[in-house]
Amino acid sequence: MIDSFSLNNIRIVLCNTSHPGNIGASARAMKTMGLNRLYLVGPAHFPDKAATARACGAQDILERAVVTETLKDALQGVTLVGGLTARTRTLSQPAFVLSEAVPNFVNQAGQDEVALIFGTEMSGLSNQEVEMCHFLIHIPANPVYSSLNLAAAVQVVCYAIATACSSSERPIQSRPLALFEDIERFYVHLQDVLVKVGFLSLEHPKMLMTRMRRLFGRAILEKQEVLMLRGMLRSIEVALKKSDHKKNQD
Amino acid sequence: MIDSFSLNNIRIVLCNTSHPGNIGASARAMKTMGLNRLYLVGPAHFPDKAATARACGAQDILERAVVTETLKDALQGVTLVGGLTARTRTLSQPAFVLSEAVPNFVNQAGQDEVALIFGTEMSGLSNQEVEMCHFLIHIPANPVYSSLNLAAAVQVVCYAIATACSSSERPIQSRPLALFEDIERFYVHLQDVLVKVGFLSLEHPKMLMTRMRRLFGRAILEKQEVLMLRGMLRSIEVALKKSDHKKNQD
Repeated sequence: MIDSFSLNNIRIVLCNTSHPGNIGASARAMKTMGLNRLYLVGPAHFPDKAATARACGAQDILERAVVTETLKDALQGVTLVGGLTARTRTLSQPAFVLSEAVPNFVNQAGQDEVALIFGTEMSGLSNQEVEMCHFLIHIPANPVYSSLNLAAAVQVVCYAIATACSSSERPIQSRPLALFEDIERFYVHLQDVLVKVGFLSLEHPKMLMTRMRRLFGRAILEKQEVLMLRGMLRSIEVALKKSDHKKNQD
Repeated sequence: MIDSFSLNNIRIVLCNTSHPGNIGASARAMKTMGLNRLYLVGPAHFPDKAATARACGAQDILERAVVTETLKDALQGVTLVGGLTARTRTLSQPAFVLSEAVPNFVNQAGQDEVALIFGTEMSGLSNQEVEMCHFLIHIPANPVYSSLNLAAAVQVVCYAIATACSSSERPIQSRPLALFEDIERFYVHLQDVLVKVGFLSLEHPKMLMTRMRRLFGRAILEKQEVLMLRGMLRSIEVALKKSDHKKNQD
């Protein structure tokens, strides 16, 4: 019933989880839906008895969980990143309700590693974490009380994913997307060039790089496009250097 | 967003729950999805500190929970009863996967009181309880490990119900998009700069501008973003000119 190839490509990333019980319950939630790749970014307590207890028959997920120091580390090798969020944000990535977001996400998982990230129990994802997402996912909830428990949110999301994976229709052709780390290198390079040409001041960066991330994040860059953009940036640098070099020669 | 009339007609009935924490977590799960009518058939411990703790902001659901001795008592006044089950049963009611079952169920809730019943943590619904159901609901799960936590199952079911109750059309928040002609001017400007820095040769343009159009087209640019990109291009031109100017002065 379930396309396990796609499910194996999906990372569930929990950021700075406070309560180890939620880690265990999330592992169990994942396993019931056939997901198995748990990433833990700076968990407060792990491994932990409470995590083990709540995982029940999903110990294997806990044992294979990858613990990283930073979110960046947890996203190495993925092409598509979705962030779960309850809050609306002023300047942010495109946001979808869960049922809208899942088909494309699952489709990409058919060929690449992809990730969904969950913030802390108390305050969700930070703005910095949101900036690493291509899109945001919102679980439609009671406007008066929308506070899903972390593991409950993981359960709903995994259910939606498993359901989408099992449906036979796979409409959209997936594109050869760029790796997370290659896109991050592009942003570093872009920032560098924008400083060199005087468009960006690191002392007063305003929201420039955030806006850039939002724009390119929305486009969901392909491998070739990142190469092209990097080439463009290099050409600008070379052109600037040539001028300087000529100047020095004269 | 949610049709609260229908949601108010839906009872979530937990049968002989062992762990009070699961009752609290179920109450929370219900409230996040706008459901509020919890029925408890012979709970092992209720009220209980653990239930209160796990309910978080859903105390009101616990306080209004109806405790009954028998399942029959909990089903007084309802017209339609669905039972959650993981096991397949030889001689049983018609069974549906959750997504198939929910539309009809929700439809009925638009005019009548209806109920969904959940069995014990250890063994689910008894055959006697199943016999009181009009139909059975199965949450599609990992065949190797299908053991959802009780509250996790309640969360998934309530999510599916709330989704079905919410109107299908959700107008996507509109962004202040750029005018066609402003985007065209941006492409002209971009091409100009790419030629100046030697990245693009007009004699051998390859598919460069086509690729750029594809990339930025996919992002569906906003007014402010086009202004920002144009500013970036101008900064590059100014930086190039400055270098050339200095060179000429030397």
